[in-house]
Amino acid sequence: MSTDCGRNKNAAKEVVETAKLSCEAVFFWKNYMSENKIVTLAEDTPLILDGGAALSKFKTAYTTYGTLNEKKNNAILVCHALTGDQFVASDHPITKKSGWWSMVVGPNKSIDTNKFFVICPNVIGGCMGSTGPKEINPESKKEFATDFPVVTIADMVRAQKLLIDYLKIEKIFCVTGGSMGGMLVLEWLSKFPEMVHSAIPIATATNHSAQNIALNELARQSIMADPNWQSGNYYHTDKKPLKGLSVARMAAHISYLSKEALQSKFGRNLQDKNSLDYSFDADFQIESYLRHQGFTFVDRFDANSYLYITRAMDYFDISSTHNGSLVEAFKNTKSKILCVSFTSDWLYPTSENKKIVKVFNSLGLNVSFIEIETDGGHDSFLLEEPKFFEAIKGFVNSTYENL
Amino acid sequence: MSTDCGRNKNAAKEVVETAKLSCEAVFFWKNYMSENKIVTLAEDTPLILDGGAALSKFKTAYTTYGTLNEKKNNAILVCHALTGDQFVASDHPITKKSGWWSMVVGPNKSIDTNKFFVICPNVIGGCMGSTGPKEINPESKKEFATDFPVVTIADMVRAQKLLIDYLKIEKIFCVTGGSMGGMLVLEWLSKFPEMVHSAIPIATATNHSAQNIALNELARQSIMADPNWQSGNYYHTDKKPLKGLSVARMAAHISYLSKEALQSKFGRNLQDKNSLDYSFDADFQIESYLRHQGFTFVDRFDANSYLYITRAMDYFDISSTHNGSLVEAFKNTKSKILCVSFTSDWLYPTSENKKIVKVFNSLGLNVSFIEIETDGGHDSFLLEEPKFFEAIKGFVNSTYENL
Repeated sequence: MSTDCGRNKNAAKEVVETAKLSCEAVFFWKNYMSENKIVTLAEDTPLILDGGAALSKFKTAYTTYGTLNEKKNNAILVCHALTGDQFVASDHPITKKSGWWSMVVGPNKSIDTNKFFVICPNVIGGCMGSTGPKEINPESKKEFATDFPVVTIADMVRAQKLLIDYLKIEKIFCVTGGSMGGMLVLEWLSKFPEMVHSAIPIATATNHSAQNIALNELARQSIMADPNWQSGNYYHTDKKPLKGLSVARMAAHISYLSKEALQSKFGRNLQDKNSLDYSFDADFQIESYLRHQGFTFVDRFDANSYLYITRAMDYFDISSTHNGSLVEAFKNTKSKILCVSFTSDWLYPTSENKKIVKVFNSLGLNVSFIEIETDGGHDSFLLEEPKFFEAIKGFVNSTYENL
Repeated sequence: MSTDCGRNKNAAKEVVETAKLSCEAVFFWKNYMSENKIVTLAEDTPLILDGGAALSKFKTAYTTYGTLNEKKNNAILVCHALTGDQFVASDHPITKKSGWWSMVVGPNKSIDTNKFFVICPNVIGGCMGSTGPKEINPESKKEFATDFPVVTIADMVRAQKLLIDYLKIEKIFCVTGGSMGGMLVLEWLSKFPEMVHSAIPIATATNHSAQNIALNELARQSIMADPNWQSGNYYHTDKKPLKGLSVARMAAHISYLSKEALQSKFGRNLQDKNSLDYSFDADFQIESYLRHQGFTFVDRFDANSYLYITRAMDYFDISSTHNGSLVEAFKNTKSKILCVSFTSDWLYPTSENKKIVKVFNSLGLNVSFIEIETDGGHDSFLLEEPKFFEAIKGFVNSTYENL
């Protein structure tokens, strides 16, 4: 992926203002900041997945921001959510929009890339360059499609561990992420506790509730109901399951926002009209908004990846692989932890996040918890939430100072 | 529709036990109880709809239970919800299941058909015999499909008023219904206040919130995304939008149940297996349940009706036609009212129902309110909820005694 001087304007502007760099320097810096890298991992020994399949020579696409210091103790691993990707603080190559966490990650931001070395990999099963259903199966020389093995959150973390090894980092300063990203954080704490100095799981849960599974199943059924899905083998046809994926995205979007946020943002406002149409066109703003969310999503996301990643989330149940005990799952964890929840998040509510806090407390760990008062719903971790930004900044800086 | 001696067994058994009737008498009584009747209304003067269209000679399918007394003061009008129908206490002709409110309506039930004359019409726009998109347009001699005019909750009530006139009832003793049925109750109170002695709106709202509209729009988009929908003209083809309608029903079903109910009913229980399949089959019980809900629904419901009825619900905003004032909307109401909400209903939460109570209180009406403590979610009004049943029974009986 190439970058140009016009991209990531805000970040560039900050650098210009703070470091008085020339445009050429900004260009260099920006290239460095947002370059999309792809590495082939498991070259010699295949990765054995929870489902039993072996994945060898798989690709991981990732971005890095900032510089790894000599002690290699300033690395922050950012784990993305279901429809996120490695473009955490870089403009997205397809949508051209700012990175999904560019309010949090960057020079002088909560996660300050002048200080920290940020790594963000696209999960396996994803569709932004890491090995997943839309990538070529080295054996068959054609796309995996549904021949791709079902992966779990633990598999995604095993793959990320190989990337961290490849980057020759022995201990990650901090692992963080929201929603599914938070599940990856928990899995890191459980599976590789000695490699994690600190962690910030955000708006997440130790397993998927029946309602969470139901919403994901709805999305999968919507995709698979689309005849253009063609049992997943649509890559070489001129028909793609865009309508099914669009409806899936609409359903997800409703669950990401709180009832209050939807009401205050849209209410019953009409879309570019003064009276009802008595038709099935989009009369209400909320209808236009949802249709827009659906339509634009399909440009940047692969329907099969949506199936695989939602499946991984539904399968996630960290106690189930530890005799049903959360204490057992985290018994070797020594990390310093900040847990964050949002009052209006009904998908991963505070009660679920408190379960995480409770187990860490029972293990005598250094764990902080903050519940952010907001009507932004689950999406709050991606929104302008100053208290949330402050909490992250305070936690990473104080933890780093006390290394 | 014909009935036979084997149908509605429980109701028949009760009658046998209580009245010692012979089988022939039961047969007669059952015929009388559950007979589906169809009447053509607006024969002379067309019904002018809110959208401006005129509907003449439209059909209304309805059931009645019990006997209208000489004073004609024992009629209870039951208004059904989105996917309900006139088979309130009769076995459903397609699913063969008991009527959707057979726990509430029947001999010696909360609404005692030994005492009251219960009327339940299928709304216009519906698909169980009343004029709607799947019925024949008398003008074109083929199905209306999307030529059917968009109807509103007020239009449905105007149509019901013609049925009540046809039945020569001047004043309905009580109008009741839950969810969309509750909207019809409110509309009756506003539009024909002099015809309503008492009313029980249940789990409803004075308008649809942005989240309510969003969920309905999701359902509509799911139906319209199905290529078998064919812009609504699927009646004479061998392809029907069953998959789109099925996904729509799944989405609705998730919204009808509370997070707690889903968790206690299904949790993460697996479906007929001991371990995960690592596939996209239904691993979890909640997945099987939702798929079943979707598949079975399409046998009894018309996709176009789903579009029309959800549209009517989204358009419902009773203050909007009264200068934005709820007080204005109900200023002529003199009825005695019982409002009911359920603690775990997130679709039409207690807060929305309390708005209704508040306006009736401000008008000095005789209004009672009960919030039923349950984890059953919005669906609670269709479930075994003894305190709810008691509340209805107490209200209708005491109101009738004080006529």
